[in-house]
Amino acid sequence: MNDEKISDFASSTRIRLARNFDGYAFPSMLDRKMSLEIVRKVLAAIGGLDDMTTYYMSDISKDDAIRLIENHLISPDLVKNRQGGAAIINAEEFISIMINEEDHLREQCIVPGLDLKGALSTMSEIDEYLSKSLKFAYDEKLGYLTACPTNLGTGLRASVMLFLPALSITNRIKAVDSALTQSPMTMRGIYGEGSKAEGYMYQISNEKTLGLSEDEILDMTETTVENLINLEAEARADIKKSLSAVKIKDQCMRSFGVATNCALVSSSEFDDLCTNIKIGAVLGYIDISDISKIDELCVKMKASNINAAAGRQLSEEERDAYRAEQGAKKLLSMIY
Amino acid sequence: MNDEKISDFASSTRIRLARNFDGYAFPSMLDRKMSLEIVRKVLAAIGGLDDMTTYYMSDISKDDAIRLIENHLISPDLVKNRQGGAAIINAEEFISIMINEEDHLREQCIVPGLDLKGALSTMSEIDEYLSKSLKFAYDEKLGYLTACPTNLGTGLRASVMLFLPALSITNRIKAVDSALTQSPMTMRGIYGEGSKAEGYMYQISNEKTLGLSEDEILDMTETTVENLINLEAEARADIKKSLSAVKIKDQCMRSFGVATNCALVSSSEFDDLCTNIKIGAVLGYIDISDISKIDELCVKMKASNINAAAGRQLSEEERDAYRAEQGAKKLLSMIY
Repeated sequence: MNDEKISDFASSTRIRLARNFDGYAFPSMLDRKMSLEIVRKVLAAIGGLDDMTTYYMSDISKDDAIRLIENHLISPDLVKNRQGGAAIINAEEFISIMINEEDHLREQCIVPGLDLKGALSTMSEIDEYLSKSLKFAYDEKLGYLTACPTNLGTGLRASVMLFLPALSITNRIKAVDSALTQSPMTMRGIYGEGSKAEGYMYQISNEKTLGLSEDEILDMTETTVENLINLEAEARADIKKSLSAVKIKDQCMRSFGVATNCALVSSSEFDDLCTNIKIGAVLGYIDISDISKIDELCVKMKASNINAAAGRQLSEEERDAYRAEQGAKKLLSMIY
Repeated sequence: MNDEKISDFASSTRIRLARNFDGYAFPSMLDRKMSLEIVRKVLAAIGGLDDMTTYYMSDISKDDAIRLIENHLISPDLVKNRQGGAAIINAEEFISIMINEEDHLREQCIVPGLDLKGALSTMSEIDEYLSKSLKFAYDEKLGYLTACPTNLGTGLRASVMLFLPALSITNRIKAVDSALTQSPMTMRGIYGEGSKAEGYMYQISNEKTLGLSEDEILDMTETTVENLINLEAEARADIKKSLSAVKIKDQCMRSFGVATNCALVSSSEFDDLCTNIKIGAVLGYIDISDISKIDELCVKMKASNINAAAGRQLSEEERDAYRAEQGAKKLLSMIY
């Protein structure tokens, strides 16, 4: 990899392990009683870990549900399992264990930037802790058994969220995507499978979990990410040399101008403005060195997080005003 | 008048005196020889005054012509009289004497804010100086004779440029305008007769010049201006109390944000942004105390003035970049 700043490209790294219990049907086939038995078992096993909060989908508030989805800690599918779904999340909200989603357990760790080994090590520690008291379904030949065969084997999905605006703007992203379909890696939009990439964010992850060791999956993912970062760096350099550079610079600057000078701004407009600000930052047109702070800000400025911060359900206009004021303050603090 | 700050309403005051020579046809009927004779006479009479520059329409550069029109020092009609048109303009460019426009002389003085008496006094001094050596066509009963009967009498047109955004936004301007048509006063858009008001700027002037003394014309103009300022102040207060206040504030702030954060901006977009910034300033949403500085900036940022400042004909993109950079710098210096 060249000497580009990784944080200009890799927003976050996620490690996910799929685990299931021996002797229980997969969640989609479980009745309420059996589902709750699994929840109880996991909670008992996790007991010794500090600062974990349990959310039961049977009584989660709408605000909490939206907030946890928006923060990528639970999936919309988990929320739908109102009878037996649950999630255990640590205080700093980088570890989440979903119970009775597609599998009995979906253990997930998200860390900023590119850190596949770090995230896997954190996740494995918890997985090993749970394994001491829980017996997971494991086949000597197939590895960990999962509800969907795509997760069979290590049960490991390693994914990295990449910011690839230049590959998108230069229309090279399609070629990259079709090259990836020939590999064991896949590229997806920000909210998971099938959705269109928003804000030029693409999730790169291993499609294959079977027949590979955890280390092989990590190496493969890292190599793909490095290749993509090099291609994106090249595309960014090309844009800066192109005739349209000043127009792109203009658009980025204007977005910063509006985001730091407005009285009302919706969540989706704020996201769009922040995307342009990030482009301006990585192209060197706006003096913000760490774009992950902009990503964090976008999450904080989502409706559910603003309501949580205010401690009550605000009106849409109140939120738009709050976002305009706080967004401007935070963005300005990044450049001064 | 209430205690509103006059500069938030009145942008500039203009006094214009129409004068003609005895024994010459009006300019539209003059041949080249006679036209130039008039120019020579005026130049001889003005000789003793310092720092006056003469522009001959026969050899004025396109850039100078556009710049002087954009700065409201000469009219497009004067430029069309290439054979005999001329203009004498002082160094600070607040006094302009057009020769062979509609009348032989159009003496004009523009001062910032509302200062009818001051502008007339400055203009009269020069007019009296010229009268010492020039014999103007004057009839004991009709007063000064002019090419168009609407200027007969004093030959005096007193006008004040008013910024009336609130009357426009609240749709009250039409009622005001139709009330004025019953009076000896008239309201026009910024570039003179017949044009639509741009940037919410309206020119208020006396339509009648005959049968009134100079003092009466000035009093009448001042009274009308005061009434309009009071109505505008009321409309501004109403807007600030209205439900749409936050949306107007938002628009004003965004315009400031874009004008101070862009890489390219056209002259017409810059004018529109500045209009919104001025609205924000007079409504108290943007901390700029003297909006006349914004008007001055808009004039400076016109293509002709940028070319003049650069000392060469820039390309459109070069000017848009210059305007973006200098405009931002000047606007930011107004608030910090």
